[in-house]
Amino acid sequence: MGEQGVNGKWKMSNIRKLSLKTLTPILAVLILASLNAWAQTPPPAVPAFSKELREQLQAVRDAALTSDYAWHQLAHLTENIGPRPSGSPQAQAAAEYVAAEMRKLGLEVHLEPAQVSHWIRGEEKAQLVEYPGQAPETTQRIVLTTISGSSATPMEGIAADVVVVHSFDELNALGREKVAGKIVLFNVAYDERKALAGMAFEAYGEAVAYRGGGAKAAAALGAVAALVRSVGGADYRLPHTGYSVPAGIPAAALAAEDAGLVEHLAAQGRVRIHLTLTPQSLPDTTGYNVVADLKGSEHPEQIVVVSGHLDSWDLGRGAIDDGAGVVISMATAEILQRLHIRPRRTLRVIAWMDEENGGGGNKAYAKTHAAELANHVAAIESDAGAGHPLGFSMKMPPAALAALRPLVDILRPMGSTAFRSVEYSPGSDIEPLVEAGVSGIGIIQDGRKYFDYHHTAADTLDKVDPQDLRENAAAMAVLGYAIADMPDRLPR
Amino acid sequence: MGEQGVNGKWKMSNIRKLSLKTLTPILAVLILASLNAWAQTPPPAVPAFSKELREQLQAVRDAALTSDYAWHQLAHLTENIGPRPSGSPQAQAAAEYVAAEMRKLGLEVHLEPAQVSHWIRGEEKAQLVEYPGQAPETTQRIVLTTISGSSATPMEGIAADVVVVHSFDELNALGREKVAGKIVLFNVAYDERKALAGMAFEAYGEAVAYRGGGAKAAAALGAVAALVRSVGGADYRLPHTGYSVPAGIPAAALAAEDAGLVEHLAAQGRVRIHLTLTPQSLPDTTGYNVVADLKGSEHPEQIVVVSGHLDSWDLGRGAIDDGAGVVISMATAEILQRLHIRPRRTLRVIAWMDEENGGGGNKAYAKTHAAELANHVAAIESDAGAGHPLGFSMKMPPAALAALRPLVDILRPMGSTAFRSVEYSPGSDIEPLVEAGVSGIGIIQDGRKYFDYHHTAADTLDKVDPQDLRENAAAMAVLGYAIADMPDRLPR
Repeated sequence: MGEQGVNGKWKMSNIRKLSLKTLTPILAVLILASLNAWAQTPPPAVPAFSKELREQLQAVRDAALTSDYAWHQLAHLTENIGPRPSGSPQAQAAAEYVAAEMRKLGLEVHLEPAQVSHWIRGEEKAQLVEYPGQAPETTQRIVLTTISGSSATPMEGIAADVVVVHSFDELNALGREKVAGKIVLFNVAYDERKALAGMAFEAYGEAVAYRGGGAKAAAALGAVAALVRSVGGADYRLPHTGYSVPAGIPAAALAAEDAGLVEHLAAQGRVRIHLTLTPQSLPDTTGYNVVADLKGSEHPEQIVVVSGHLDSWDLGRGAIDDGAGVVISMATAEILQRLHIRPRRTLRVIAWMDEENGGGGNKAYAKTHAAELANHVAAIESDAGAGHPLGFSMKMPPAALAALRPLVDILRPMGSTAFRSVEYSPGSDIEPLVEAGVSGIGIIQDGRKYFDYHHTAADTLDKVDPQDLRENAAAMAVLGYAIADMPDRLPR
Repeated sequence: MGEQGVNGKWKMSNIRKLSLKTLTPILAVLILASLNAWAQTPPPAVPAFSKELREQLQAVRDAALTSDYAWHQLAHLTENIGPRPSGSPQAQAAAEYVAAEMRKLGLEVHLEPAQVSHWIRGEEKAQLVEYPGQAPETTQRIVLTTISGSSATPMEGIAADVVVVHSFDELNALGREKVAGKIVLFNVAYDERKALAGMAFEAYGEAVAYRGGGAKAAAALGAVAALVRSVGGADYRLPHTGYSVPAGIPAAALAAEDAGLVEHLAAQGRVRIHLTLTPQSLPDTTGYNVVADLKGSEHPEQIVVVSGHLDSWDLGRGAIDDGAGVVISMATAEILQRLHIRPRRTLRVIAWMDEENGGGGNKAYAKTHAAELANHVAAIESDAGAGHPLGFSMKMPPAALAALRPLVDILRPMGSTAFRSVEYSPGSDIEPLVEAGVSGIGIIQDGRKYFDYHHTAADTLDKVDPQDLRENAAAMAVLGYAIADMPDRLPR
């Protein structure tokens, strides 16, 4: 997942929600209240699943849990094709590959054009050139990576003194006098304690505001560049890239170790950094969402979306973000075809383009399919890694959630039984659909280590556990097939 | 620690010992036998420590356990001075800094010259340029780092097909016909299961033979370059550098993820790599061991060495390898001076130069001090990180080990009570002393994560836990002071 979607609004707004500490207790109360309601209120009178549907769902689940289809697809996307940044030949090759694989399965496939971002990293390097205790004739290398809203420095780089802050308030209190002409470092740590306690997205939300908006705030006070401590866990000197609001100045994320170094040295005296970043933000180009339909037998016009995003950042190979989401969506179709099960409604596999750096794919889809959105019954997206699936985030009316409740029995063997009602879209690419009233579902993966690898060079195939991936395929296939085949359409 | 010492022999030979599976059970039996002997044999009649010595040792221990001296010194070496490769201005600055700090404490200090290696990394990059399933007009970046015996490629690099092997036997079975003109990848994994079970050095020994000697074996069959899977744990796409035998061909260590990628793709078809490595092996230069004496009150001619090595690899900042060893040796002197305790024998702090890439420092010391080696009572070295100290590896006669046994009571509060008798030098810089009959002692640190960071960019100050460092300072100070002050000289 990235940090923003339509016009950069989506993720930033949701993250703002998540990151506001005042809202956390409220969210907790809402969740507890809904759990409480489950416990105390008699279940609404919803028709139980038929014996036949239950048996089919069990067969779908078990087929997913014993298949390596998703794994082989993920290996191809990540290792044979590799990194797939929006606008790149790899992104194009990946779209064509997924389309071909879906055609092989007998689906009706379209490559749907979208205006997508086209960003190229260029050179990125930095050195501490002056600092307390510096050995004669030496500098120190700083590990960093450019973030997407960065302007380019001249080829020979820029040099300026650093000022370190830990919040927007601290920056603003310094004011233009102390910030103008400086390089601002926002040294705000991702709170790994939260992540390990199951609140990885909250930890992310608290820190990512500085990657997203730090450069803009610094530029407003005359800073010549903005640096941010990488948003993510682990301690292997690995910088994390990502989206940032363009602010007209160079901007990069430091490895946590280097953010710490700069802070320690700046506390002792003057620290001067030489910074060279040469990214290119090229004009938007045409990319493609892959849209592959397994047509419904009774209500082909009614659509259930299973999806992940095909683009990735360029540093790694896009395994957990989000090759995994794409291949478990592909696996849903493969399993139904292999078992010769055709649902009543159309199951639509979507591999989204440009989730990471603009959301061009989902914007184009919402526009192209505007007339059909009323017939989109539900949209599922997996974009939080490939960890063990614990359950689902669901943005839908209570009656819809209640109608899905019998699925808990099907999902119990793999533990994906947490049905969490949420107030926001549980995925950035499905947000336009959710805003149009479509029920939205996200898989809740075990995310304790997700942000250790997220947007880094280490997002590679080996970070995915084959059994976890099978479980995710099962979760996606069970939900997707159930909603596509239930006798009654999910209440809207 | 590195992989070799005098003439590249030391570490390679010891590692060979460690890595031979047939020897492991023998070593285990020896250890168990010695433990057994402890349990069954009545303790030899050694004089117990005097009440005064015991009280002083407790005071030394407690002073170390409550002091931040070592931490502040480590912060200065790693963050203000930074990486300290042998032959660099930083190594020189570090030697001068440690000498000045020891003079500040009132020690008698010499900077002793040594011929040391001078190696400069240069550029290092690689791309997969042909491979199965490759998207049109694309390549894939491979993360690697040059190892010390590497020859330079031309500036424009070289390109060749890859052949992947998993042992010297497999390489030799391929023969010249299949190896000549190729790039050989030795894809032998560091066994993290061993490391987590307390056998990190065994895991290291099994894999490092390929980093040390892989290039030479590949060159002998006409390979144009040699690559090795990085020797170390963790999975954050971090390459590990280190010593290798010069073989006249370029040589580098791949991140584990990239070794896996190359192996997977090569199993599917032809893989071609473009490789650019431009290291420079400059002529040996003059570096310095820091030798700082706290003169003994009764037997100043008798010497007890406490030591670590001051040089580091260039990628990280040399915190666990081996800034920690230096600063706990410095702390030993600081504590004795602060407590106004002067031992009977001379306590000598040594900060060794060029442990990593030639052992020039320890060779020069052994030569310069050849006439005094008979008066070297013991030499302690810490070069296995800064993890919690579990005890000591001891190369000494049984009577000497028995004489130190009362120390277990002093060390019990911090758990550093494992006294393990070993047959080899427990440190590479003290090996010439051990070979001359001096009792050698190494601190056994908790090494489960040591090789996750060892020789990588992530060897930085934050990897050291302040309390663990205090415990290591206590371990060094208690052993060093006890041996320097015991009424009877440690049996030789």
